[in-house]
Amino acid sequence: ADLPDLVGKLPSPKVIWIMLPAGKPVAETLEALGALLGPGDLVVDGGNTHYRDDVTRAEKLQSRGVRFMDAGVSGGVWGLQEGYCLMLGGASADFQALEPLLKTLAPADGYLHCGPVGAGHFVKMIHNGVEYALMEAYGEGFELLQASPYGGELALQKVAALWNRGSVVRSWILELLEAALARNHDLAGVSGHVEDSGEGRWTVEQAVADGVDATNIAQALFKRFRSRRAETFSDKVVAALRNEFGGHGVHGANPK
Amino acid sequence: ADLPDLVGKLPSPKVIWIMLPAGKPVAETLEALGALLGPGDLVVDGGNTHYRDDVTRAEKLQSRGVRFMDAGVSGGVWGLQEGYCLMLGGASADFQALEPLLKTLAPADGYLHCGPVGAGHFVKMIHNGVEYALMEAYGEGFELLQASPYGGELALQKVAALWNRGSVVRSWILELLEAALARNHDLAGVSGHVEDSGEGRWTVEQAVADGVDATNIAQALFKRFRSRRAETFSDKVVAALRNEFGGHGVHGANPK
Amino acid sequence: ADLPDLVGKLPSPKVIWIMLPAGKPVAETLEALGALLGPGDLVVDGGNTHYRDDVTRAEKLQSRGVRFMDAGVSGGVWGLQEGYCLMLGGASADFQALEPLLKTLAPADGYLHCGPVGAGHFVKMIHNGVEYALMEAYGEGFELLQASPYGGELALQKVAALWNRGSVVRSWILELLEAALARNHDLAGVSGHVEDSGEGRWTVEQAVADGVDATNIAQALFKRFRSRRAETFSDKVVAALRNEFGGHGVHGANPK
Amino acid sequence: ADLPDLVGKLPSPKVIWIMLPAGKPVAETLEALGALLGPGDLVVDGGNTHYRDDVTRAEKLQSRGVRFMDAGVSGGVWGLQEGYCLMLGGASADFQALEPLLKTLAPADGYLHCGPVGAGHFVKMIHNGVEYALMEAYGEGFELLQASPYGGELALQKVAALWNRGSVVRSWILELLEAALARNHDLAGVSGHVEDSGEGRWTVEQAVADGVDATNIAQALFKRFRSRRAETFSDKVVAALRNEFGGHGVHGANPK
Repeated sequence: ADLPDLVGKLPSPKVIWIMLPAGKPVAETLEALGALLGPGDLVVDGGNTHYRDDVTRAEKLQSRGVRFMDAGVSGGVWGLQEGYCLMLGGASADFQALEPLLKTLAPADGYLHCGPVGAGHFVKMIHNGVEYALMEAYGEGFELLQASPYGGELALQKVAALWNRGSVVRSWILELLEAALARNHDLAGVSGHVEDSGEGRWTVEQAVADGVDATNIAQALFKRFRSRRAETFSDKVVAALRNEFGGHGVHGANPK
Repeated sequence: ADLPDLVGKLPSPKVIWIMLPAGKPVAETLEALGALLGPGDLVVDGGNTHYRDDVTRAEKLQSRGVRFMDAGVSGGVWGLQEGYCLMLGGASADFQALEPLLKTLAPADGYLHCGPVGAGHFVKMIHNGVEYALMEAYGEGFELLQASPYGGELALQKVAALWNRGSVVRSWILELLEAALARNHDLAGVSGHVEDSGEGRWTVEQAVADGVDATNIAQALFKRFRSRRAETFSDKVVAALRNEFGGHGVHGANPK
Repeated sequence: ADLPDLVGKLPSPKVIWIMLPAGKPVAETLEALGALLGPGDLVVDGGNTHYRDDVTRAEKLQSRGVRFMDAGVSGGVWGLQEGYCLMLGGASADFQALEPLLKTLAPADGYLHCGPVGAGHFVKMIHNGVEYALMEAYGEGFELLQASPYGGELALQKVAALWNRGSVVRSWILELLEAALARNHDLAGVSGHVEDSGEGRWTVEQAVADGVDATNIAQALFKRFRSRRAETFSDKVVAALRNEFGGHGVHGANPK
Repeated sequence: ADLPDLVGKLPSPKVIWIMLPAGKPVAETLEALGALLGPGDLVVDGGNTHYRDDVTRAEKLQSRGVRFMDAGVSGGVWGLQEGYCLMLGGASADFQALEPLLKTLAPADGYLHCGPVGAGHFVKMIHNGVEYALMEAYGEGFELLQASPYGGELALQKVAALWNRGSVVRSWILELLEAALARNHDLAGVSGHVEDSGEGRWTVEQAVADGVDATNIAQALFKRFRSRRAETFSDKVVAALRNEFGGHGVHGANPK
């Protein structure tokens, strides 16, 4: 019925795995659980929390003796049938305690203790950054096919299917694209508006913080930003400048 | 009245400077002039021709004794009052013959013999590539100002004017932007559709040929391509993939 | 022993599949074969030829009645055990004639008639462009892992293995990386000097020609260029400029 | 002699302008001044502080009645002779009080009240982001000139000088480059190692926060990161992958 009810029904030491949107929902639930749980109990945050928040929250829980692990979970809705890929952060003892549960959720060898608290979400964050860039790579490739001199004759769904059969670029993402194109060969009606959900932004911030050249991931993120605008002020600036070269209109200032 | 008329009226050795759109117009005119001119005459192509075309055409003209120089011309319509910046390619003797004319067109020290035939247009091509990237730099900066928490209060035209007064980023392009924003402070009604006219593409091709990392110039070009589309197939691919993760719809293929 | 010997031993209509480095080797061999073969014979270029060269060469062969197909082949040395992914360009009748052979080379459904002459190499070229960007995506991700606060504790080979088990970014390229890291966990001794072999450059040129924003592919190419230099002139220019701001040294010109 | 001495010698209302490295030096000095100053006094932070720190610090000072303005200052060491370009954030009354001082520091019209506290440093931060991208644009252009078929004959310092005389790309940065190349025509001995000092990173973070596509600025920052490494782990990953395609070595895993 509610958290106290849930906590009351679990035998000790209790293990609670939460799957909530990052931010306030996770923060409030951990706060509430911290008050309900006691020494030896373990909470696992399986959402897409920023790894730095893990560290702060774990310290707070630890002051009450409550243990904490962060779990990065990949696989989307397909995980239900294929198993979830699990990236864990936290103490080794906690990882071992959790291992039987991880084995039931993950495919064979599909879970890893990545390091101390935060490491699980950190590895998941970078995973998602890579995912952004992989998607963009295929996006550019298929746009090049479509826009090309051969684009009129090319069945893109056949190319996606072909490339999944023995080529160097075969991947699960390409299998998803094969499925999408099989249902809708030119993606008619699909909006080009692409959302982002945080980890891509955090990956770029991490690259900036660590001094790593992560152009492709950054570019994949920026393309998503761009996809959500009909036009940009930046483009208007460039267009206006081109117009100035042409000398149209009357200048308010006398260029040097 | 026409080319034969023009050629007939000029004393020998004749010097003819053509200012035509790159491609067919230049090719046809040089062809016609080649037939009309003779040994010792000099043709200058002041348009935005690809430097490799210069080399081919110069050889053809040379077979008839006609001399050729290529001239990259910068300054836009403002050149009329401020002088044109001139980049010359061709033989040294031809450059010296042309120098009195160059002095009347250019501002003080505003012309240069860049090298053999093609060098003038080559330097102009790179100039335009740089120009693309400079424009994009300001575009991004002003979009960041506009989109920022302070954007509502910031008068962009005042920032452009300010930055032209003693700051590190002051430039002629920024003076043009200052003028554009002074007339239209938020660029209302300016379309974000940005054309390109060849040199930017050639610069990227040159970078690819010479193995030079020219990311910013390439990116400035790609942004112009992007500005001309309401949405891209690449974005639709990425959006479709995100949808697949969510498991909406029925997959035709069974992902591994 | 040699081409005449080979041609002499084959029954008509002869089918010859060449696997040669793009450029001169292919051109010379096709020239020689053109002189040896006759009407009804078929040559397949299975190398990484530029698609425009296919068109020219096919026309030349056709004038002697010799048929031509281009075949993009992916799979690397692994193709021997896993089958080669084959992308074919040429006439439908020629494709059908070749199909029994394709079935023996490719995995199930691993070949496709992509369109007229050139289409096979075109699709392969874009495939390789995508491959460049995919590799870069993983490269950036693993560098971010290594450079991160958790980098010291993270076993990169375990992350690569993990991500191949159920995660969204699983792929054949990541399986190769898993194998490479399993043998050499920090890639010690691997030089960061990355060659390129043409298709990446051609893909960028194609993007420029077709007005497609292919930033990630271009960036992957530029990073390879960059990887081969100890330092760049571009960086020296930026460093020199930073020095000028600081006013070190004596300026030859008096900035405005 | 020290801060108390300085404060003691100034008549009320006191105005103190600090020029210190961002971070701890500014924080500690403002802390100390806050204890020494009283209602009506005004502190101006003229360093490169992050605009969010301005807001926090201004609130703290305000609790003691001390006023605060942030001032972005551009112009480098050249400001002494040419005047400093000044971007101010804070209350209008404080700006007016400061105006006589601003007039003596800036060139004509070279100061602006950009908005509330933080706005001055915000505009300066974006200014520096733009500066990064401008420098990179010239860097790429001059590397393309140097690496080109005409590079051997081209005097780069003459091109820089030429482009400053009437061309579209003329700018103060290019005047600095002209001066640098005049002294050292091929930048011999200049290290390509390029530092960054914070504002570029903050600008990219701001772009990420505001959902703005700032590719060129991000790329300019990433190139600086890259310039400081002999090789990158990312490149090693790509090189290792290329090696795997070639099938060298023994795979630990059996690719699908």
